[in-house]
Amino acid sequence: MATAGGPSTKKGILERLDSGEVVIGDGGFLFTLEKRGYVKAGLWTPEAVVEHPNAVRQLHMEFLRAGSNVMQTFTFSASEDNMESKWEDINAAACDLAREVGAKGDALVAGGICQKSTYKHRKDEVRIKKIFRLQLEVFTRKNVDFVIAEYFEHAEEAVWAVEVLKETGKPVAATMCIGPEGDMNNVAPGACAVQLVKAGASIVGVNCRFGPTASLKTMKLMKEGLQAAGLTAHLMVQSLGFHTPDCGKGGFVDLPEYPFGMEPRVATRWDIQKYAREAYKLGVRFIGGCCGFEPYHIRAIAEELAPERGFLPPASEKHGSWGSGLDMHTKPWIRARARKEHWENLRPASGRPFCPSLSKPDA
Amino acid sequence: MATAGGPSTKKGILERLDSGEVVIGDGGFLFTLEKRGYVKAGLWTPEAVVEHPNAVRQLHMEFLRAGSNVMQTFTFSASEDNMESKWEDINAAACDLAREVGAKGDALVAGGICQKSTYKHRKDEVRIKKIFRLQLEVFTRKNVDFVIAEYFEHAEEAVWAVEVLKETGKPVAATMCIGPEGDMNNVAPGACAVQLVKAGASIVGVNCRFGPTASLKTMKLMKEGLQAAGLTAHLMVQSLGFHTPDCGKGGFVDLPEYPFGMEPRVATRWDIQKYAREAYKLGVRFIGGCCGFEPYHIRAIAEELAPERGFLPPASEKHGSWGSGLDMHTKPWIRARARKEHWENLRPASGRPFCPSLSKPDA
Amino acid sequence: MATAGGPSTKKGILERLDSGEVVIGDGGFLFTLEKRGYVKAGLWTPEAVVEHPNAVRQLHMEFLRAGSNVMQTFTFSASEDNMESKWEDINAAACDLAREVGAKGDALVAGGICQKSTYKHRKDEVRIKKIFRLQLEVFTRKNVDFVIAEYFEHAEEAVWAVEVLKETGKPVAATMCIGPEGDMNNVAPGACAVQLVKAGASIVGVNCRFGPTASLKTMKLMKEGLQAAGLTAHLMVQSLGFHTPDCGKGGFVDLPEYPFGMEPRVATRWDIQKYAREAYKLGVRFIGGCCGFEPYHIRAIAEELAPERGFLPPASEKHGSWGSGLDMHTKPWIRARARKEHWENLRPASGRPFCPSLSKPDA
Amino acid sequence: MATAGGPSTKKGILERLDSGEVVIGDGGFLFTLEKRGYVKAGLWTPEAVVEHPNAVRQLHMEFLRAGSNVMQTFTFSASEDNMESKWEDINAAACDLAREVGAKGDALVAGGICQKSTYKHRKDEVRIKKIFRLQLEVFTRKNVDFVIAEYFEHAEEAVWAVEVLKETGKPVAATMCIGPEGDMNNVAPGACAVQLVKAGASIVGVNCRFGPTASLKTMKLMKEGLQAAGLTAHLMVQSLGFHTPDCGKGGFVDLPEYPFGMEPRVATRWDIQKYAREAYKLGVRFIGGCCGFEPYHIRAIAEELAPERGFLPPASEKHGSWGSGLDMHTKPWIRARARKEHWENLRPASGRPFCPSLSKPDA
Repeated sequence: MATAGGPSTKKGILERLDSGEVVIGDGGFLFTLEKRGYVKAGLWTPEAVVEHPNAVRQLHMEFLRAGSNVMQTFTFSASEDNMESKWEDINAAACDLAREVGAKGDALVAGGICQKSTYKHRKDEVRIKKIFRLQLEVFTRKNVDFVIAEYFEHAEEAVWAVEVLKETGKPVAATMCIGPEGDMNNVAPGACAVQLVKAGASIVGVNCRFGPTASLKTMKLMKEGLQAAGLTAHLMVQSLGFHTPDCGKGGFVDLPEYPFGMEPRVATRWDIQKYAREAYKLGVRFIGGCCGFEPYHIRAIAEELAPERGFLPPASEKHGSWGSGLDMHTKPWIRARARKEHWENLRPASGRPFCPSLSKPDA
Repeated sequence: MATAGGPSTKKGILERLDSGEVVIGDGGFLFTLEKRGYVKAGLWTPEAVVEHPNAVRQLHMEFLRAGSNVMQTFTFSASEDNMESKWEDINAAACDLAREVGAKGDALVAGGICQKSTYKHRKDEVRIKKIFRLQLEVFTRKNVDFVIAEYFEHAEEAVWAVEVLKETGKPVAATMCIGPEGDMNNVAPGACAVQLVKAGASIVGVNCRFGPTASLKTMKLMKEGLQAAGLTAHLMVQSLGFHTPDCGKGGFVDLPEYPFGMEPRVATRWDIQKYAREAYKLGVRFIGGCCGFEPYHIRAIAEELAPERGFLPPASEKHGSWGSGLDMHTKPWIRARARKEHWENLRPASGRPFCPSLSKPDA
Repeated sequence: MATAGGPSTKKGILERLDSGEVVIGDGGFLFTLEKRGYVKAGLWTPEAVVEHPNAVRQLHMEFLRAGSNVMQTFTFSASEDNMESKWEDINAAACDLAREVGAKGDALVAGGICQKSTYKHRKDEVRIKKIFRLQLEVFTRKNVDFVIAEYFEHAEEAVWAVEVLKETGKPVAATMCIGPEGDMNNVAPGACAVQLVKAGASIVGVNCRFGPTASLKTMKLMKEGLQAAGLTAHLMVQSLGFHTPDCGKGGFVDLPEYPFGMEPRVATRWDIQKYAREAYKLGVRFIGGCCGFEPYHIRAIAEELAPERGFLPPASEKHGSWGSGLDMHTKPWIRARARKEHWENLRPASGRPFCPSLSKPDA
Repeated sequence: MATAGGPSTKKGILERLDSGEVVIGDGGFLFTLEKRGYVKAGLWTPEAVVEHPNAVRQLHMEFLRAGSNVMQTFTFSASEDNMESKWEDINAAACDLAREVGAKGDALVAGGICQKSTYKHRKDEVRIKKIFRLQLEVFTRKNVDFVIAEYFEHAEEAVWAVEVLKETGKPVAATMCIGPEGDMNNVAPGACAVQLVKAGASIVGVNCRFGPTASLKTMKLMKEGLQAAGLTAHLMVQSLGFHTPDCGKGGFVDLPEYPFGMEPRVATRWDIQKYAREAYKLGVRFIGGCCGFEPYHIRAIAEELAPERGFLPPASEKHGSWGSGLDMHTKPWIRARARKEHWENLRPASGRPFCPSLSKPDA
């Protein structure tokens, strides 16, 4: 890894994407740190950045080591309306942690903001934009490399976010948490993408709420929408690390298993290699994950696209491609799993014969 | 948590068990750190303790915070025959990490040794005992609180281990990686337990290779074997965090999903609460986990047995009992999940309709 | 049952449908008689009408007793090109059997023709219409009550069939074996329905190839297509008795389980009651089944719609509504199943833990 | 088929078995005729033999055609205590139907009696034997070829039945409806078999309540029990046509799907070929089926054992071995299924992604 770093010496996000590079995002902080004991489900707020900075630093390190080129500030929901007086310290500390770890490798720092729960009740553009700006002031002070508006259910609010983010002068990415059926105001994915690009986003896509397959289906619709409108933008996908063929429009939060019974749905590393390959084929060049995406899933993206990128991530020192690390096992039937065919064709059993394959979403 | 600690000031493992306390073990280091990027599957060796001590320290911290009363030294397979010249540094560093973190709470340090791959080919008692003694010298020098012989497929070799461990004068625990069918020499679980206790183990049980249900079935057989022989010992269980109803005698390593496609089998926290309750009912008082057991699984043991123990672990500050953290959610159908009945009765879907429930073991 | 019958004394098919009656079709002869030993899979030809008339008569009787108002002549594929010199005798014998049994109750006789395998290779309208006319001459001579063009993959060929059937002067029904994606020439279901009605069909719909859920989805599209075109017609559905959520455009023949491993997919009687209710709600008034539909499935339609129709079928003397026949069982837990709630909410297990829920279609 | 027949001219059941012949039983009348509309679930009585003799005759014909060498009288539960004054006519008519159809081929007639519901409440040997004798008087008058005591949950009552059956002087077979756990008085399968043979049964085994796999496991235990006791007897198995890995001691009646939601559990013909082969390997030579066994399942036994027996059954004129009838299909991917490998390895999907693989038995 690089011995020094910082925004001035690294290629910027648009430089990378414009030159055709694959940029690997990071994975999910909320679910991963919930399992480690530092985030409370339901609240889903990032006070761990000040309460337990070592735990957050360690997770950043793991994503960096797995191949992430982006350290997203752990500032989800960390706006004034959610976190009261603590909000400013949290945003600042999150920026510092992301910068500190990003500097140990080839990763940029991205400041992220997300939707406000108040939008649904009262679409108060002025109030919402004001809250966005508070977080942005910290990001600007901390000089993040670029900014992301993520986890928006409504294109209208996402557009407001992009408009505010543009004021920073930094490159703007925008991802919505929608599936192929579109946003909660019934705006189709293609139209959402068009609105975001017209508002000034250079990078558009989806994050969270849906698994790899559904997210890529949505990306395809976004891409087609942009093409039909004669617009160009970089594409970005950060899907769940969970399989969700049985979700309705609301995504995984409506599944009865959310959030404490999602284990059987977790994607294998091989599922994620397929996701990375398909995203790449679709023309998506900013590929990462969201809830359920753990460091080894990010490594799987980096390994799948190593031929195109020309290098493996640091964590691959501990991972043989396609299970090759098993080739020295003493039992011949375990050695027989040290090959691509085994893992590519495996249909993993759940060990749960009393459980169904699919759920009926609540509501 | 306690601000200071050490073996001299803490109640020893036998004091605790003799007085009827529940002792909570820790979870799995190999699988957890493999996913975080620090352990290589196939090798399964703990060189991370010197290469990436922060990653190991952090995992110890998470288990401590989740409620573990035992910090097991991360020394699995760290014997001279596996790790060449590095073995001594690794054992020493592992002891220091376990001691450092254990001192931050109410946790004892346990030095662990495991079976030698050479046993199967050449049952050389002298050579094998010699290798055990090398690791033990480090544990003695580092003054661990007690010692564990774990992951033995053959009672004969486990007895050798217990005999060597007894030489330290420290309390000895011994767990075998067997299922209800018994060891690889066809010694039944009850007979295995009897041999281990006769050899000097104060605590006996099983770890690894089988999931919660099968492990408890084996424990029941061990208990019955001891009763029939008129022996008493403390019982200990550290099952996999994976469901394995479809395993044969060899356990999970024979499943085609091992080790890179186990995701759908991961136990939920609610599964582990049932496991903890059933273990307790069976009279097992040393309850922990092995591969697949992550910090939140350990927390689930601590939460399930909080009524008996009288306190919750530190990590429960981020976890409402039985999903109660969801009770402030804006969507009523998600709020409806904030209760025991929902999670206790949930049969979680895999989201994988092309996959079966069970696998046929290889070999 | 009526002691006498015949076309002259019964209400015709259009009289019934025009007056709002529900007409219950029959079920599948090919699959049912294959299991009974009288039809060869692959060939799927009805030589049993001359070789084993008692077996065919018995199945007609069972459908009549279950509530069918239509005895379809067992003439599937019984055209000159498939059956050589035997074709005429088979068509005649099939008409006689259908008439004989139909006369024992309130059932009409329908003569059925289906698609020609030659269509795909050479769309020879003249040749194909000529083959259709040969079968029709027998139907006319035997004076069937109405005629059905069924199992067409291409609207174009179905239109040819309808044009020929119109020449008989009898009411014409036309059903295609397509799913929601439309016909094999990419004509959507709505457009197919429009073409069939414009060609002269009074009754249109689907039969075979797809299960209850998919078939009703297609019917909805047909209905909407007709409404959009300002056309009216009676709607008819005769779905498979198998669940097929995993079929592609080609339907169940592309599933690897077709035709000898379909058992786990067979619909329960309760599944069929739902199908009947949903078909009714959609405005479909000619409701029957195709392959996999056995007599008890037809009875389930008749029982579900008994409130609307005002009577139960003869076979209901051997069937208590919603399992009520279990209420005298000696075991209380079996008696507890004698109620609608049990069967309506049951998710029946397959007893096959090594099998997946869904298949990937071949081709 | 033979143009004439009768007990005097055919080889008797013991002659056949003594000479090493495989005898193929018939399948299930109750479930099959329930689906056809002639038997009422819950009651499960055979009044159809007088009410609808054609339907019963037809099913006998189908089993004969599929290869059955035994026409069992359809007299299940047809004892005086269940059927009041009708009982005698029903037993007589059932014998006539079995004889009439059996005479059309190489099939013997077996008169069957089964357990009394009164046994559980009051073990009145005198009363129960008296009821058995009433049925037997009809069987004797109608001169059946041999007699079967079937569907007994308690060895004690089965022994009473055998004792009464022995009075007829005809060969006696006895099958219990138990699984590997033994009878309802906790008598193990081996001990049950021993008691039955000691009481005078020449043929012993199991029927009903459990699927193919469990039934063969029970047969193995019976065989071992007889061997250990130094007894010899012919072995007979007539399992369910349903898969029941999830049954407890009570068998399939305790499953929540019983009796109206068993469809996903129905065995394929290929499952039954395995069952026939394994039964044969175990030394069982009287192989048939019970509830859920339809004519094509019996044909599957006859086809699997055709190499040993030297001939195929009549119904195989409509069935190519291992799917070979598909080899003339126009679609290449369907033709590809015309081979043993496809069907032998197929794991058939249920098409029911919301349903589990296994159920928890009631009670």
